[in-house]
Amino acid sequence: MKALVLESKKNLSLRDFPITEKTGPYDVKIKIQACGICGSDVHYYLEGAIGDFIVREPMILGHEAAGVIIEKGDKVTNFEIGDIVCMEPGIPKPLSGEVLAGMYNIDPDVVFWATPPVHGCLRETVVHPSQFCFKLPKGMSAAEGAMIEPLAIGIEAAKKARIQPGDTALVVGCGTIGTICAISALAAGCSKVFISDVKQEKLDIAGSYANIVPVNTAKTDLREFIMKETNGVGCGIIFEASGSPRVYPDFFRCAKKGAKVVLVGMMNGTVPIDVAYLQGMGITIETIFRYINCFDRAVALVNAGKIDIKRLISKTFKFDDAIAAYEYAAAGHPDVVKVMIDLT
Amino acid sequence: MKALVLESKKNLSLRDFPITEKTGPYDVKIKIQACGICGSDVHYYLEGAIGDFIVREPMILGHEAAGVIIEKGDKVTNFEIGDIVCMEPGIPKPLSGEVLAGMYNIDPDVVFWATPPVHGCLRETVVHPSQFCFKLPKGMSAAEGAMIEPLAIGIEAAKKARIQPGDTALVVGCGTIGTICAISALAAGCSKVFISDVKQEKLDIAGSYANIVPVNTAKTDLREFIMKETNGVGCGIIFEASGSPRVYPDFFRCAKKGAKVVLVGMMNGTVPIDVAYLQGMGITIETIFRYINCFDRAVALVNAGKIDIKRLISKTFKFDDAIAAYEYAAAGHPDVVKVMIDLT
Amino acid sequence: MKALVLESKKNLSLRDFPITEKTGPYDVKIKIQACGICGSDVHYYLEGAIGDFIVREPMILGHEAAGVIIEKGDKVTNFEIGDIVCMEPGIPKPLSGEVLAGMYNIDPDVVFWATPPVHGCLRETVVHPSQFCFKLPKGMSAAEGAMIEPLAIGIEAAKKARIQPGDTALVVGCGTIGTICAISALAAGCSKVFISDVKQEKLDIAGSYANIVPVNTAKTDLREFIMKETNGVGCGIIFEASGSPRVYPDFFRCAKKGAKVVLVGMMNGTVPIDVAYLQGMGITIETIFRYINCFDRAVALVNAGKIDIKRLISKTFKFDDAIAAYEYAAAGHPDVVKVMIDLT
Amino acid sequence: MKALVLESKKNLSLRDFPITEKTGPYDVKIKIQACGICGSDVHYYLEGAIGDFIVREPMILGHEAAGVIIEKGDKVTNFEIGDIVCMEPGIPKPLSGEVLAGMYNIDPDVVFWATPPVHGCLRETVVHPSQFCFKLPKGMSAAEGAMIEPLAIGIEAAKKARIQPGDTALVVGCGTIGTICAISALAAGCSKVFISDVKQEKLDIAGSYANIVPVNTAKTDLREFIMKETNGVGCGIIFEASGSPRVYPDFFRCAKKGAKVVLVGMMNGTVPIDVAYLQGMGITIETIFRYINCFDRAVALVNAGKIDIKRLISKTFKFDDAIAAYEYAAAGHPDVVKVMIDLT
Repeated sequence: MKALVLESKKNLSLRDFPITEKTGPYDVKIKIQACGICGSDVHYYLEGAIGDFIVREPMILGHEAAGVIIEKGDKVTNFEIGDIVCMEPGIPKPLSGEVLAGMYNIDPDVVFWATPPVHGCLRETVVHPSQFCFKLPKGMSAAEGAMIEPLAIGIEAAKKARIQPGDTALVVGCGTIGTICAISALAAGCSKVFISDVKQEKLDIAGSYANIVPVNTAKTDLREFIMKETNGVGCGIIFEASGSPRVYPDFFRCAKKGAKVVLVGMMNGTVPIDVAYLQGMGITIETIFRYINCFDRAVALVNAGKIDIKRLISKTFKFDDAIAAYEYAAAGHPDVVKVMIDLT
Repeated sequence: MKALVLESKKNLSLRDFPITEKTGPYDVKIKIQACGICGSDVHYYLEGAIGDFIVREPMILGHEAAGVIIEKGDKVTNFEIGDIVCMEPGIPKPLSGEVLAGMYNIDPDVVFWATPPVHGCLRETVVHPSQFCFKLPKGMSAAEGAMIEPLAIGIEAAKKARIQPGDTALVVGCGTIGTICAISALAAGCSKVFISDVKQEKLDIAGSYANIVPVNTAKTDLREFIMKETNGVGCGIIFEASGSPRVYPDFFRCAKKGAKVVLVGMMNGTVPIDVAYLQGMGITIETIFRYINCFDRAVALVNAGKIDIKRLISKTFKFDDAIAAYEYAAAGHPDVVKVMIDLT
Repeated sequence: MKALVLESKKNLSLRDFPITEKTGPYDVKIKIQACGICGSDVHYYLEGAIGDFIVREPMILGHEAAGVIIEKGDKVTNFEIGDIVCMEPGIPKPLSGEVLAGMYNIDPDVVFWATPPVHGCLRETVVHPSQFCFKLPKGMSAAEGAMIEPLAIGIEAAKKARIQPGDTALVVGCGTIGTICAISALAAGCSKVFISDVKQEKLDIAGSYANIVPVNTAKTDLREFIMKETNGVGCGIIFEASGSPRVYPDFFRCAKKGAKVVLVGMMNGTVPIDVAYLQGMGITIETIFRYINCFDRAVALVNAGKIDIKRLISKTFKFDDAIAAYEYAAAGHPDVVKVMIDLT
Repeated sequence: MKALVLESKKNLSLRDFPITEKTGPYDVKIKIQACGICGSDVHYYLEGAIGDFIVREPMILGHEAAGVIIEKGDKVTNFEIGDIVCMEPGIPKPLSGEVLAGMYNIDPDVVFWATPPVHGCLRETVVHPSQFCFKLPKGMSAAEGAMIEPLAIGIEAAKKARIQPGDTALVVGCGTIGTICAISALAAGCSKVFISDVKQEKLDIAGSYANIVPVNTAKTDLREFIMKETNGVGCGIIFEASGSPRVYPDFFRCAKKGAKVVLVGMMNGTVPIDVAYLQGMGITIETIFRYINCFDRAVALVNAGKIDIKRLISKTFKFDDAIAAYEYAAAGHPDVVKVMIDLT
């Protein structure tokens, strides 16, 4: 079938790729309709690797997708042919210790699309376990469905933050994931979210949402601003979504007493933490890794109109222009959040 | 000063009432601008008592209020004369066991407005501890401020429910508190809220909010409807807000596995519970009593536009017509949610 | 192989039973060494059914067991031939919604030993998924290993209670599970546990443990006793383990403010609950159903000497006398807690 | 009255000190019977300051104490003259935001014994709010009562760790607080606690308790040892109690997936943290500062025999030898845990 193949570092082909997949009793076969480009896809494209995950063989990219069910296994009862679904891209090992402990996201044996040596889903069809497919309600587009995967990360972050209604949050870093954390935090009960970055174009996009207050830290002292805006109280919830060691440990100074801090951004190496400060403030630090049972939640919130995810799709390319799409995404335009590929 | 006095059962006077209050170092004196009528106020008016709380002496009514600060104690630093505030009406005993345990709401020594023998605040001025006053942001009216007290109950219920973003909720009972639970649950992260009652006028008001689905149980089987609408999954969050024993234990049958059920409605006597069902479903039951640290959260959510509380003010009377206001509230008009008194 | 077969209600055979089990890649084959008799086993023996679970075909009994591994699948890496293990008897459906949600105990498709039509393990050998086997440390006997299953229920109850160190608990009902809840609560951090019943022989056994205070409610008013012993404070943790509707709702009156109540005992029909009382006390109600990830915890606590589980084995029969063992267990001797069958 | 006075850095007097204290309506007056020497007391003695807390005027030392009630206020109902009590040394500001939020420990206005300019309690008598006094049960000595204060820190750490029964813990650092964390963790439900340090004498004392496994990291690789002992699983609970930046971030490598890490040890400056590692492991970091509602829990566990706190009293001096006691404590003998002063 036709697929976007990363042959090797910086070398993409849109070509026929031989894949034979059997639809097992609990599986569905999906004709892909939309697939987003993630930062990790771009990273594999440009670098050929992320940490220890090295692309050694040609690999199909893509893991943010939605499509239509065209075939289903004998035991699949909750889907019909023709249903439009989005898909959770990582499948854990059944009955592993992590699965039984409710932490399937950190199962070391998880099989995740477009993580070498596992192929991604930027191709005509894919077979997937029905348990990891989520029906899109009438009126939700496949492109919105493809946005559910990155949105799920924001939902997971919001869950971990144990937001109480009316909390004020700070998101450090206004990239795609930072912006998604901000809109997720609002949907999850925050009354206001500050988001900080030095890139004004990104801040403008986030700031176009109601109740999100952008803070350009190239011009404004973050702590001073937050403390003024919160009458000296600080933020009860903080999401670190920049993945930049330079923001540590200063952003903690924007916390309210008893704050929950969720570390979302990934990075190499270590960051400095001021333990005595955390103790005196009663701060708890949570971390996330991907998501646990978040796709149906994300779909429900988009469907309810509580999260406008469409606004983050900056540009859409046809499947035939998938290589151009990757080049565009890799160019790092400051006003681009998500690049989408339309496979219909 | 002029006050609305419940002289005895069914006997109200709007008259001068001798009260002398000293503004202590941490207190503020507030000129009342708006005061709502609560179901408990009406109950004292009609019955002269609620359970063991019996009106034995003339008592000023009212505990849902907002007003302007006209005097402040020496040690009050977070308010200025002229600030518009709403007030939390119950003051616990400082350093009681319940206060230290973070449960000041159930301190047996709490002093609560319009709970005999404590006077309420439907009067010209009141002195109150500044710790229990909450500044209204610019643009929020005193009438909205007076709605913060009943809204705080919905916020407490939502907190106790530990809502996760995207949850579906059911509210049983569409009275004032039920409707407030529904809008609070949405603000706290639910994507959809079903609300059930037999009074269509009440359901119409609740149903005017986005993502609230009214269910008239005079015409519709609740469980059947919920299960159809949720694809057989049920609701992850249930608020019992009817205070009617007749709804027990059937509403539990609308639960999703692992659901949180919050009992909000109060009643005399016992209700039947099916323990084996709860066990097989992994259900947790929480209860609330008034609220803990909810006023600032409620103010923030109204200010953010995430909760439209004004819509629930059905009719406003001037202070001079306060007795008529009580009679109107006591009449139980089916399309009336909240009756407000304007003291400006 | 030789097995204890419930041919039909009140009709047991110890006979050869044809079973062929294949040891799959993740399975182990276990030679059973010890198997306890559970109340549910006795119930099937005497009644031929528990609720909707009806014994329609001859069924092997037994689900509390330990034994030695005599064969293992290709992919089993954490066990060796010769390891002594105890076994969790219920296997959920891999990747079901309940499993992914961390609630595998309430997966409707769980396959559980000696629950019709699934055979139990009171037989020579059994094949079991290695993920549900738990190695016994050196020095722990197979009989102790067979006690891990009922102990796991107490551990689950203690987990759900979210015990904080130094809590005082009340266990209502001093049967096998009540006694196990009491010793689990102590191991989980309680400083003292009251246990109530009307059977003095059972209370004497529970009272032989340090820090367990038996209360014979045939002679003593429970609430009065608890309040006197706790200086009017009450118990922060309550386990209902009697399964008797008659104890409801009175035992709640022994609660401390903010108490956690865990409903362990199962029963038919409904029980009365006083909602207003729960609200005024800030009580939370939790339920359990079997256990989630408790076997390794139970093994660790027995191995550490923090739970003396051997004391609850009242009498041991050889496998050849298994029918006599069931008759003895069914006789309901007041001083008998657990009857064990030795298959070595 | 006679008191141990820190006149200035390294200058102690045991002398008459003029203090007049009125016993308010909720207060009790206590004749001190035992007072321990804390690391902070020694620090003030040797350095004259801890961070920003500088001893500018002569200050009485001591905050770990117990004694007998010799006078009580009108409104004190839960104590009698003659009761032996221990005392929680920090009194928050009534109805402060932190108090109402259940975090009285981090109230910035807390008044804490022997924290300049507040006098300590190493003197003949002290007046204290009855809400912060805790009756010792019959059979508990005043010296044990004086140990409740440091023990409360271990109880707070154990609470924050949300230990589940049977957890395995690691304590990093075997000083007084580390050892107390270890015995608290066991009392709170752990089945085994590893404790690491380079000082063998300290490890020997901790290792004398059942189920505490000392690890001398001067000779043994900590992670390698822990992983071998836990079959590669790691510890579900980690307490950092060394206060040494050098142990960061390596001790995290001993964690089990989903582990809770509680930072107990205080220090200046920052420590390095490996965020990506925490994310992949699903680790949560909690902090503590002193304690919240832990004294009654600590008393109950000591009284139950679940914590042997007496074993940690290394040497006792008479009040007349209080200066010698401080010199002894300041000498840092490797086999000394707690130095106690007897004022009877």
